Amino acid sequence: MAVSFTVTNRQKNGRARLGLLHTPHGTVETPVFMPVGTQATVKTMTPEEVWDVGGRLILSNTYHLYLRPGQELVREAGGLHRFMNWSGPILTDSGGFQVFSLGPLRKVSEEGVTFRSHIDGSEHFFSPEKAMEIQMALGSDIAMAFDECAPYPCSYEYAREALDRTSRWAERCLAAHRLKEQGVFGIVQGGVFHDLRKKSAGEIVSLNFAGYAIGGLSVGEPKELMYELLDYTVPFLPEEKPRYLMGVGSPDCLVEGVLRGIDMFDCVLPTRLARNGTVFTRRGRLVVRNAGNARDLNPLDPECGCYVCQNYSRAYIRHLLKAGEVLGIRLTTIHNLSFVLELMKELREAIREGKMVEYRDEFMEKYQYG
Amino acid sequence: MAVSFTVTNRQKNGRARLGLLHTPHGTVETPVFMPVGTQATVKTMTPEEVWDVGGRLILSNTYHLYLRPGQELVREAGGLHRFMNWSGPILTDSGGFQVFSLGPLRKVSEEGVTFRSHIDGSEHFFSPEKAMEIQMALGSDIAMAFDECAPYPCSYEYAREALDRTSRWAERCLAAHRLKEQGVFGIVQGGVFHDLRKKSAGEIVSLNFAGYAIGGLSVGEPKELMYELLDYTVPFLPEEKPRYLMGVGSPDCLVEGVLRGIDMFDCVLPTRLARNGTVFTRRGRLVVRNAGNARDLNPLDPECGCYVCQNYSRAYIRHLLKAGEVLGIRLTTIHNLSFVLELMKELREAIREGKMVEYRDEFMEKYQYG
Repeated sequence: MAVSFTVTNRQKNGRARLGLLHTPHGTVETPVFMPVGTQATVKTMTPEEVWDVGGRLILSNTYHLYLRPGQELVREAGGLHRFMNWSGPILTDSGGFQVFSLGPLRKVSEEGVTFRSHIDGSEHFFSPEKAMEIQMALGSDIAMAFDECAPYPCSYEYAREALDRTSRWAERCLAAHRLKEQGVFGIVQGGVFHDLRKKSAGEIVSLNFAGYAIGGLSVGEPKELMYELLDYTVPFLPEEKPRYLMGVGSPDCLVEGVLRGIDMFDCVLPTRLARNGTVFTRRGRLVVRNAGNARDLNPLDPECGCYVCQNYSRAYIRHLLKAGEVLGIRLTTIHNLSFVLELMKELREAIREGKMVEYRDEFMEKYQYG
Repeated sequence: MAVSFTVTNRQKNGRARLGLLHTPHGTVETPVFMPVGTQATVKTMTPEEVWDVGGRLILSNTYHLYLRPGQELVREAGGLHRFMNWSGPILTDSGGFQVFSLGPLRKVSEEGVTFRSHIDGSEHFFSPEKAMEIQMALGSDIAMAFDECAPYPCSYEYAREALDRTSRWAERCLAAHRLKEQGVFGIVQGGVFHDLRKKSAGEIVSLNFAGYAIGGLSVGEPKELMYELLDYTVPFLPEEKPRYLMGVGSPDCLVEGVLRGIDMFDCVLPTRLARNGTVFTRRGRLVVRNAGNARDLNPLDPECGCYVCQNYSRAYIRHLLKAGEVLGIRLTTIHNLSFVLELMKELREAIREGKMVEYRDEFMEKYQYG
């Protein structure tokens, strides 16, 4: 099998676990956070920098790469790894989340989704078969099944229709997939409804994917509701397969997600916040753009050991951001990814030592109340 | 003396020479090209990257740093080197070129120049004394005298007035300068007029600066005229002091300048072109943004050994540029600076081997005619 998973350590108190995710481009320790390289680049960073801050598995986007530069060029270039010069593993999403996010620009049928490009308005069609074809051309290590992600809030009926379609599409994805060197993950939907989550998990797991994602969370619902749905849903996923919580990347949610047995995460939040001039610190977020930092010669986070915090002051970084200098968003991006990836390392260490609950309590106390 | 210079090798055929420029932050081999870090950052790059591509002496701008973030903050931060995390030598310009470039936004008197900020329109005043005060606060290794750069074309009378004022201001700069750990360079003006260049050189050299810049060239005049004026002016500069040709950085002009006895250059061209999607190759410029490169899997310059050319294709870099990804302009910037700094290295090697004229002929043939 192209992608396999080994659980190496289970926390006795709670569901957190350590694992090894084996892929054609290397083995990755879990729980893992995947930096997002939407357009075949983790925004502002070279692949070497992503590696240096601790990135081991990255995510890239089928929808974006299909539109620009097109999967055929990527295939000609030797696949996504060579095209973007990243030799570690890559997971590609299916494009489902993106095309369903287009709102009035898309039309759903049983066959698939017709949508208009956000770049030039041209019309396109994605189906489960097409999503697999594109991901096979990209040559990622892990492809995601094409799913329908219901919005929050949404009615019970809509959530059920979306999950039923997701199940039928999941079968079509597996039938269309023909790349031995690529694992395929299924996605559990079902909105905020317990019985629908259970139904979706049962149907998707019965298809025997290489791993399972929980989709349709972190789409606007309160964090407590997300945690509660994780508590409910995770037990329906098999112990021996990786569990991936899609679109989650704020430090507090990573900690709470790992505690609930999640192995993989991705999110644009750390890199997007960075480009807006906001950084993570152990005592919560800091808006480094703010005037209050104009003469502050401290590092972004005095408790952080990253390249940025060892070499630059808040005053300098704020100067760069105010002056529109690219180095400013580079430094905030490096810091935020370093922060999140260091956090994942500490979480793995806490599980190894059997102290996950204590770690969570200490981290959250400081992060939320400074 | 804070800054001194040793000529280590003289080309027999022509004026090219090798030298060592000694500064408080280290010794630099000349001829040298200085990457420009206008706002306390070489655009898009970290200091480590500037070093890795071969940058050893960088230039930063008094006008810009005075307006934002202000020289007092830089002083509080421990000077420009610490503020921007660059431990090599720094040369600061005087702000003269910038304020004279503001056109209708400035008013010149014997005392100095009143001008309006390009950022917020606020009114400011620069004098020789003020330019020195700011550069002392910044703590650069080399400060430039505050000069008046006449535009091209301009009348003989205007050029003479500007050079006379530049001479009087040069004296005031030296009188106002009180930082032992900083060398001061004078600037020769005189437009395109031989007798004015001779007069300016005589007056400025009589003041005994640590080095001499040739200003007022590369401001729109034909390249052949610039070369002719260099041939005429350089002999009026002392052999034992460094000669700095301001604002010159296209590969052909660097080669021709070195041949004519220039030791130092600076220019935004390599980095600015890069951000516009144009790169240098041994066979001339390449507009990598062009559609013709969309499926080209060759490196930017197949003859280049830089990080970018070893790892990325034209197609990938064009994709990044078209998609608005910061990594695109980072890669073109790294390539262009690598190209220019590798060229300087080859020029030093050619002088060492006594083959400067041959190097020029070969380089120019290929660069101009592909």
